[in-house]
Amino acid sequence: MIQPQSVGIVAPQRARFTVPLPLRSGGRLDDYELVYETYGRLNAARDNAVLVCHALSGSHHVAGTHAEDPADIGWWDNLVGPGKPLDTRKFFVIGVNNLGGCYGSSGPNAINPATGKRWGADFPFVTVEDWVDAQARLMDLLGIERLAAVIGGSLGGMQALSWTLQYPDRVRHAAVIASAPKLTAQNIAFNEVARQAILTDPDFHGGHYYEHGVVPARGLKLARMVGHITYLSDDAMAEKFGRSLRHGKAVYSYDVEFEIESYLRYQGDKFAGYFDANTYLLTTKALDYYDPAFEHGGNLAAALARATAEFLVVSFTTDWRFAPPRSREIVYALLHNRRRVSYAEIDCDAGHDSFLLDDPRYHAVLGAWFDRIEVQP
Amino acid sequence: MIQPQSVGIVAPQRARFTVPLPLRSGGRLDDYELVYETYGRLNAARDNAVLVCHALSGSHHVAGTHAEDPADIGWWDNLVGPGKPLDTRKFFVIGVNNLGGCYGSSGPNAINPATGKRWGADFPFVTVEDWVDAQARLMDLLGIERLAAVIGGSLGGMQALSWTLQYPDRVRHAAVIASAPKLTAQNIAFNEVARQAILTDPDFHGGHYYEHGVVPARGLKLARMVGHITYLSDDAMAEKFGRSLRHGKAVYSYDVEFEIESYLRYQGDKFAGYFDANTYLLTTKALDYYDPAFEHGGNLAAALARATAEFLVVSFTTDWRFAPPRSREIVYALLHNRRRVSYAEIDCDAGHDSFLLDDPRYHAVLGAWFDRIEVQP
Repeated sequence: MIQPQSVGIVAPQRARFTVPLPLRSGGRLDDYELVYETYGRLNAARDNAVLVCHALSGSHHVAGTHAEDPADIGWWDNLVGPGKPLDTRKFFVIGVNNLGGCYGSSGPNAINPATGKRWGADFPFVTVEDWVDAQARLMDLLGIERLAAVIGGSLGGMQALSWTLQYPDRVRHAAVIASAPKLTAQNIAFNEVARQAILTDPDFHGGHYYEHGVVPARGLKLARMVGHITYLSDDAMAEKFGRSLRHGKAVYSYDVEFEIESYLRYQGDKFAGYFDANTYLLTTKALDYYDPAFEHGGNLAAALARATAEFLVVSFTTDWRFAPPRSREIVYALLHNRRRVSYAEIDCDAGHDSFLLDDPRYHAVLGAWFDRIEVQP
Repeated sequence: MIQPQSVGIVAPQRARFTVPLPLRSGGRLDDYELVYETYGRLNAARDNAVLVCHALSGSHHVAGTHAEDPADIGWWDNLVGPGKPLDTRKFFVIGVNNLGGCYGSSGPNAINPATGKRWGADFPFVTVEDWVDAQARLMDLLGIERLAAVIGGSLGGMQALSWTLQYPDRVRHAAVIASAPKLTAQNIAFNEVARQAILTDPDFHGGHYYEHGVVPARGLKLARMVGHITYLSDDAMAEKFGRSLRHGKAVYSYDVEFEIESYLRYQGDKFAGYFDANTYLLTTKALDYYDPAFEHGGNLAAALARATAEFLVVSFTTDWRFAPPRSREIVYALLHNRRRVSYAEIDCDAGHDSFLLDDPRYHAVLGAWFDRIEVQP
């Protein structure tokens, strides 16, 4: 059943681009497609568009449901809709599956037009900056010269930040949520474990597993299990699972004994059933590479000097993947440049995952911030 | 070259036990062996013995070197030796490889006397309590009725704690370092990822890989990589590796780019080359199961009421695997029972690994504590 504040049934759209896109890796995409969804209506002044950037496992399907699968609710449906914090009565909201993704945009599991076969491991490395370039071309196609706002959480927040640096004139506001200006060694370490799990899976076949009729499900499952640990806070795990034993006592087996084991295995298996391992690899590398201060000798303030947007930065107290100090780095660098920035550090016990949940204070902050953004009627 | 304060060249010894040992899992070992080393001299009063309990990947080789491999220095050599905090001029120090281990004691990679083949997956589950029972029998054999002290870090700390509960009359002092009275859901989650990496490795063969002439090296490597992340603090990783790129810039490859990747892969490969995967599985389960308060409705103070030893509890500020609050739980439960307990929370940036390092304040605390323990001349 469609909820009252849902955008309702939505249908993905597809855009093809034939002007070559140069990539930071040195490669380029000559012919590529992006799948996207839109919610609300672009106004006559074309000044009410908000781009939503997705994180590691997200997609273009941000809100609403699909007619053929009513249970497939958008990943940020609690945020986007009529009367919701990102109000589709006011804004024209766009979700796009990034290049290298596995939900319909050009990526490893899509057909390489040059060969007629799936790209597999031949799909080029893509970076946050490449994604933003591709998103900008989609905005061109939609006739949107300037975004009212760009918003994203986690890796999506990196894209929002990068928009303000790559296209400062094309974005008025940017919301960077549960994110960081670059990964730490520990962040990279977790990504590397996930990658090694996939790369060493005998079913990986050098990334060309499609041709072998298999997927590296074991590796992808492990990658997701590691990921899930870092998405949840220690406290949230303790509260949700604690040391609960499925059989009430130890039974001395490698089958599921503790409920947390059951949860992780279930999440891992589910993910391995629908997500593409090559996309997981590419996306973790995009995360690792992102570091706008790198070309400024590590000086983030210098890197952010180009940004002119008004910012909202949000972090969550129990997020240890991208802890509040990582968000504060962004805030301080913006303040150093005398930029307008609002910062909220939300006391929420759900860890990194908080950015996907609907904590009332969090959504109140977002709602107030979007409410303040001026658009033509 | 043997350092001045080294115990020098040592040789492991072996003890065989033929009185059946009942196990918490319901099984029993009818015939088993323990490998151990000793340093210093047992005095005439037999009251100067200190048992050192090892953690996940440790062994009986606590100090000194082996004649056939001078580079094989004991894992706590910085602590144990003449003039060191645990001074072998005063104490008779014993290191023992736990049951289920892979360094010579009865375990999955050892021969099952009943079949003449390696135990493999048929080796029974062992718990912290079982290990302590086996250690107590070794003490019987060595003629040690009462230990001057038992000491261990991490999982070794759990054994030290368990000694005071299972054999309160046989241990005068206990040092519980970088440990916890039980694992959290997050701790178990990391162990479960490690286990799944091993169990789903096609070379695991249900634990009977020895017969197939292979080892589940991929899985064991991943397990160790995950483990290493949790042994180091975020800060220590940042300081040691940061975002250093091997080639000075991104080269867009799944080969090693960041130095932290190199470190983790190296540690993982090295470990997979010498450690036994079945032992890793068994040991992580022993960690998961340990929970002395379980039979007391979760009341740790009630569980520790049996303990009569004098305690030293040590934690490290940047240890997020067994964070200081986990040690404080032990301290509070002991204080509740009016026991003597010293507690030191050491400001050391190396994370969980700190317990193996020789931070001067940490070693000063240990040295002073051992110095205070009275033994006959």
